[in-house]
Amino acid sequence: MKKILIFGAGRSSIYLIEYLLDHAQEGGWKVVIADINLESAIQRLNGHPSGMAISLDTLNESARKSAINEADLVISLMPPNLHQTIAEDCLEFGKNLLTASYISPNLSVLKEKVMEKGLIFLGEMGLDPGIDHMSAMEKIHDIQSKGGKVVSFKSYTGGLVAPESDDNPWNYKISWNPKNVVLAGQGIAQFLEHGAIRYLPYNRIFKEVSTIQFPELGDREVYANRNSLSYIDLYGLNEAKTVIRGTIRHPGFIEAWDAICSLGFTDDTTPVLIKNGTTYSELTCSFLGIRNKNPRLGFAEFLGINTEHIILDKIEWLGLFSDEKILGFSHDGKLGYTQTTIAEVLQNLMVEKWKLNPSDKDLILMQHEFIYELNGKIKKLYSSLILKGEDHQYTAMAKTVGLPLAIFAKLLMSGLKYEPGIHIPLDKWIYEPVLRELEKNGIQFIETEEELAF
Amino acid sequence: MKKILIFGAGRSSIYLIEYLLDHAQEGGWKVVIADINLESAIQRLNGHPSGMAISLDTLNESARKSAINEADLVISLMPPNLHQTIAEDCLEFGKNLLTASYISPNLSVLKEKVMEKGLIFLGEMGLDPGIDHMSAMEKIHDIQSKGGKVVSFKSYTGGLVAPESDDNPWNYKISWNPKNVVLAGQGIAQFLEHGAIRYLPYNRIFKEVSTIQFPELGDREVYANRNSLSYIDLYGLNEAKTVIRGTIRHPGFIEAWDAICSLGFTDDTTPVLIKNGTTYSELTCSFLGIRNKNPRLGFAEFLGINTEHIILDKIEWLGLFSDEKILGFSHDGKLGYTQTTIAEVLQNLMVEKWKLNPSDKDLILMQHEFIYELNGKIKKLYSSLILKGEDHQYTAMAKTVGLPLAIFAKLLMSGLKYEPGIHIPLDKWIYEPVLRELEKNGIQFIETEEELAF
Repeated sequence: MKKILIFGAGRSSIYLIEYLLDHAQEGGWKVVIADINLESAIQRLNGHPSGMAISLDTLNESARKSAINEADLVISLMPPNLHQTIAEDCLEFGKNLLTASYISPNLSVLKEKVMEKGLIFLGEMGLDPGIDHMSAMEKIHDIQSKGGKVVSFKSYTGGLVAPESDDNPWNYKISWNPKNVVLAGQGIAQFLEHGAIRYLPYNRIFKEVSTIQFPELGDREVYANRNSLSYIDLYGLNEAKTVIRGTIRHPGFIEAWDAICSLGFTDDTTPVLIKNGTTYSELTCSFLGIRNKNPRLGFAEFLGINTEHIILDKIEWLGLFSDEKILGFSHDGKLGYTQTTIAEVLQNLMVEKWKLNPSDKDLILMQHEFIYELNGKIKKLYSSLILKGEDHQYTAMAKTVGLPLAIFAKLLMSGLKYEPGIHIPLDKWIYEPVLRELEKNGIQFIETEEELAF
Repeated sequence: MKKILIFGAGRSSIYLIEYLLDHAQEGGWKVVIADINLESAIQRLNGHPSGMAISLDTLNESARKSAINEADLVISLMPPNLHQTIAEDCLEFGKNLLTASYISPNLSVLKEKVMEKGLIFLGEMGLDPGIDHMSAMEKIHDIQSKGGKVVSFKSYTGGLVAPESDDNPWNYKISWNPKNVVLAGQGIAQFLEHGAIRYLPYNRIFKEVSTIQFPELGDREVYANRNSLSYIDLYGLNEAKTVIRGTIRHPGFIEAWDAICSLGFTDDTTPVLIKNGTTYSELTCSFLGIRNKNPRLGFAEFLGINTEHIILDKIEWLGLFSDEKILGFSHDGKLGYTQTTIAEVLQNLMVEKWKLNPSDKDLILMQHEFIYELNGKIKKLYSSLILKGEDHQYTAMAKTVGLPLAIFAKLLMSGLKYEPGIHIPLDKWIYEPVLRELEKNGIQFIETEEELAF
């Protein structure tokens, strides 16, 4: 019997594994769930007869190679740095490989060899990147095939909390990698706006906020995300005057997050010495440069805002003004210092405060805005996805990251004719069948279109 | 005959090599100058009979090991990442090692083995780190030996341009690694001020400027530099309420540099896509987010200053408003993009603009300010170094980086009794003879002391 080998049984694997187990009998395959923690793999298998759980350390070369050699298809949910090793083994043993991660420059180098062996390595097959590519490309191809010209493309994604589970002043909970939440926006965002290139560095990224609307949910705020310029070529948008990708947050989140960044609390490059026994309040005061003062008052002065401002309520709720000792930190009796990064201190706090409770539902939002010319008219098309999770395990995040991989795995195992090589899901032969199957699983975009009058 | 092996014949090696060659005959040693570029080594040797120039790629294991095995003492001026390999070979062949770089955590691990073999590895033996350690520790030990207590320690260093060679509005030229000039201040500065710990992140580091005075030269400005907290233990300053180390610049430099940082031009983490043919003016406008506008006017609005402000004169002089195409950049005819970092674009420009001309003299400034209690009195002691270079090769920077290494090498070769282990120059048996010999070579601190009245 054929085998699908999955590396990683972490929280983004739940829908992926269930889908593949559910279709295993009709498809005639077995699902091998490999994780360094056997318990996690067993839990994901959940006693299903069409699979098996194995303990596997990806860094153990012989165990890894042997598992890959026995598989017919490999799916990697490992951290990006481990994909390369897995990919090289897949090449050696002639196995197809699917991941939700970006294709690294190192991986791209294997392109020719992957083609020669007639294999497919498909990356960026999750939510963002993944569903964003597929849903945007379907519309772009559709517009272009009618003779239309895309003059503006904006695309936003956010992993948030559903309104019914939203019980904190940030209107936010963490459904994905908390480290990425802390480091979001670092570097320089790059995009095209009204024909001009814009570079927006970290110190200003959260100060340029726009508002978008979702049917029924109402307003959300967005900021520009990483490198949108590379999407001009990638998506074939050479006639567009505006190409912007961004991140969605609840109104008010971004300005408060900007305050935390301004204070310096998201730096992960510098080991800082923090005195044992230090409280959050003291730490905040050390960054504000104030002594014997109320940190809320000091922060208000630092930001030049009223002491009753809602930004300060948010920061206070997060715990930065509290007299608690710093979480996840050495507080031994010696009058010493612990070395850490301030980003790690913040992350430890956020993971506690922004935790999804067992019955909490997360929320995935995605919206593309296309402006295009067709037959002398200018039209504006919105394509939006609103997806709520079930609970803290069956999250919309896990569903949207896992199902594209699972569906494409099923297609491959069912004999889909593919173009050999290293791909991301931009082509119709990939996105078309996957989007239709996602729709059947409740991941469906809503479209509204209007003609612009001049 | 004994041999001193020097790795690296770059611009910081000129005084080091000349000193060792000059003392070779009386000392009875030969100087082996090893560089990947044989020409550089030959140029440094300058036909001196007591030395030899060899071509050596530090990454070539057999050549490196063989050269080290034949030496009696090794001095490494290589980039810090190559010290480790050299250090491991020195340990293997039982050779002493001197460098001007920081002792890395990886190098510290070798400590026990270095002691067991009776060797000395001495790091941080240049200017800063180096002369700063030695000159400060001599004063601290002096104060403490009299029963005094240091309650405040401030220490500043700067590599600048001498007034007679100062012909640009920044009052600055580059005498050291230009990359470090671009990245200066990144991360979080940490220091102790009036008993309270301060953390100062990059977005505010250049906004907290203090003024210090130098005899005859007048005022200079300073900003806090990296981690001063670790110097509390290192220098035995546990009773001090203030411990700050910083960097010296000419008045007005720091506020203008802050403007460039605010714009985002010092980011070296993000590859940015820049359209071929882009001019500096266009690039600046893309960061400012303005179109069809004067970049000087746009920058003035961005900073909230008058268009006649001297900050803008400085930035204009540097070339950020110019219609020249970007230096060191691909400008081929294809309508494509070149990927680089904005820090690299800025560095290429700065290296041209802030170049030392052949007859230019650089300037090293260092100042320690000690406040200490002794016999019920409070005293303030300034210890200052002002050193001008000769020309663009015989720089004060090369002299202050190279001579401490050269002098300690001479001491070792002359039979100095040392404590085996990995050291930095904090102990009297190291700094005392070195400081006296530096004085003979014109590197002399001036002291002024006053009693503080209350």
